[in-house]
Amino acid sequence: MKIALIGLGSVGQGLLQILKDKAAYLEETYNFKPEIVAVGTASKGTLYHPDGLDIDDLLKALEARHLRHYPDVYGLTRNWDIPFLIHECNADVLVECSPTNLQDGQPALSYCQVALNSGKHVVMANKGPIAVAYSDLRAQAKNAGKHLLFEGTVMAGTPSIRLAMQALAGCEITEARGIFNGTTNYILTQMEGGMSYADALVRAQQLGYAETDPSADVEGWDAAGKGIILAAALFNKRFTLSEMSVQGITHLTAADIKAASEAGERWKLIVKITPEGGSVKPTRLPMNHPLAGVGGSTNAVTYTTDLLGEVTLVGPGAGRIQTGFALLSDLLEIARNPY
Amino acid sequence: MKIALIGLGSVGQGLLQILKDKAAYLEETYNFKPEIVAVGTASKGTLYHPDGLDIDDLLKALEARHLRHYPDVYGLTRNWDIPFLIHECNADVLVECSPTNLQDGQPALSYCQVALNSGKHVVMANKGPIAVAYSDLRAQAKNAGKHLLFEGTVMAGTPSIRLAMQALAGCEITEARGIFNGTTNYILTQMEGGMSYADALVRAQQLGYAETDPSADVEGWDAAGKGIILAAALFNKRFTLSEMSVQGITHLTAADIKAASEAGERWKLIVKITPEGGSVKPTRLPMNHPLAGVGGSTNAVTYTTDLLGEVTLVGPGAGRIQTGFALLSDLLEIARNPY
Repeated sequence: MKIALIGLGSVGQGLLQILKDKAAYLEETYNFKPEIVAVGTASKGTLYHPDGLDIDDLLKALEARHLRHYPDVYGLTRNWDIPFLIHECNADVLVECSPTNLQDGQPALSYCQVALNSGKHVVMANKGPIAVAYSDLRAQAKNAGKHLLFEGTVMAGTPSIRLAMQALAGCEITEARGIFNGTTNYILTQMEGGMSYADALVRAQQLGYAETDPSADVEGWDAAGKGIILAAALFNKRFTLSEMSVQGITHLTAADIKAASEAGERWKLIVKITPEGGSVKPTRLPMNHPLAGVGGSTNAVTYTTDLLGEVTLVGPGAGRIQTGFALLSDLLEIARNPY
Repeated sequence: MKIALIGLGSVGQGLLQILKDKAAYLEETYNFKPEIVAVGTASKGTLYHPDGLDIDDLLKALEARHLRHYPDVYGLTRNWDIPFLIHECNADVLVECSPTNLQDGQPALSYCQVALNSGKHVVMANKGPIAVAYSDLRAQAKNAGKHLLFEGTVMAGTPSIRLAMQALAGCEITEARGIFNGTTNYILTQMEGGMSYADALVRAQQLGYAETDPSADVEGWDAAGKGIILAAALFNKRFTLSEMSVQGITHLTAADIKAASEAGERWKLIVKITPEGGSVKPTRLPMNHPLAGVGGSTNAVTYTTDLLGEVTLVGPGAGRIQTGFALLSDLLEIARNPY
């Protein structure tokens, strides 16, 4: 399998690291021998070698912060424009993990379209294209006979989407409720321990969970984006951010937390989606609900199904290797079922 | 897909019910149109019709407690010996759900062998053959180019095995810890509410969770059997019951429960397996562990993995429809990947 990898931030580098560290295991266990033939980012240049790039050299060049540090080798092409690179390269799969843009999904959306147009499967960790244009992309992929996979867009590599679409196949899912934002869940857990919202936010920023501008997390927009993706995948419904009812955790006070605790309950920022719509809001859950026990930056999802009742999956929701694994797991699925 | 269904207790009937109720959904969503061509139990006789049996009539005959109540129709054969029936019928798949025998796996084990010998896939909810002879059966299935699937043997239809084998493919699982026995978990939950062990057991028996002879549950043997199956599936290791360190919940007292609770912990009957061995024992878990929040008759498993850390799945561990779904989900996998 030949791969074009666009976006070389922490997730893209996580995938490279896994492919390097687990090469022998993946070949032995799954007969999976991927080659990275093309890489690129908007700011660090692009590389293309039809016979494969060296992962060690790639990681070293990225440590030095630009692909110009990748050694010159016979047959290497540098600095093609990204859409041209995606179109012309001999990859079987585009792995898209450039930064997320939930407004119009660009530039990743056009990268995905170019890939499908030129006969490549698409795997992505980028939420933008799925949130904005899932139906169109799905139709395009179906017409092209190619996979469109995006496990990494919700709960990192914790297989929330694969659980719903494959392992629960045969069940009808009528509702999903999830804790999809680790930053806010970490803050709420700290507040239960007695910390104020402001202090907990600072701690989250110190640990790298929260951005300097934390509004996408604490106001619920990141969680809403994931809800939109799940609604697309589970129900084939397109909700826009403006159609979701979104409320963050910024108004929760220490007194609210304490009142819930005294009633044997816990506040969680819950994303809820059904075929009819979606919402993000702080919700008091009884202590014995599986989502109530999910602490720190961990994520979780509860699917309500016709045949099994509630099924809950708990696992990491972020991280370089954890999200890199989501990409690997999509690639392994393509290797298993080439279509 | 033509199916031979051996064992018509609650799980077998659960599958029939699902195939009846969801026929239109399964055809529309997965293009899945199964036919039951053969059924049988040791005590209720057998039926074979190469063009398919009527599920409504089957369910009615089973309500009347014997297959002789199935109407006579042209082409129907009655009362073939079960192994002969499995061998001779035109089914693509044997669904084995006769009663579990953890000692020698019989008679189900020989049914499975006959099925594989005569070119049929095998799907089972019966723990016996997998616990006793997984390696041999797996080798036989591989040689025959047939599937050997057994999602229903652990946590009913909650996809514990499919999660490990497929959705987490690419990760290495180093340990599994689970709550695999709903009866004991129900009793422990009641004891936390202040009930004595004896009263909680009676309540569990009244609700139908516990057998009249509850020893297989409360002494940990049922849970151990599931640990053996997971060890086989995850690590390709064969542990026998006598090699497992098994301790039940019969010695736990109200004082033990209270002491844990005061320390912010909870007792759970935990099955733990690693490539080196397995154990079943009452274990005190900190309240913030995902397994600590699993109450009542619900089951759960936590996989420790190299790339994701801990991933936990929570869902039903028993039930007619819930286990029937496990069989359906294995059948859908065969339909998706005929080999």
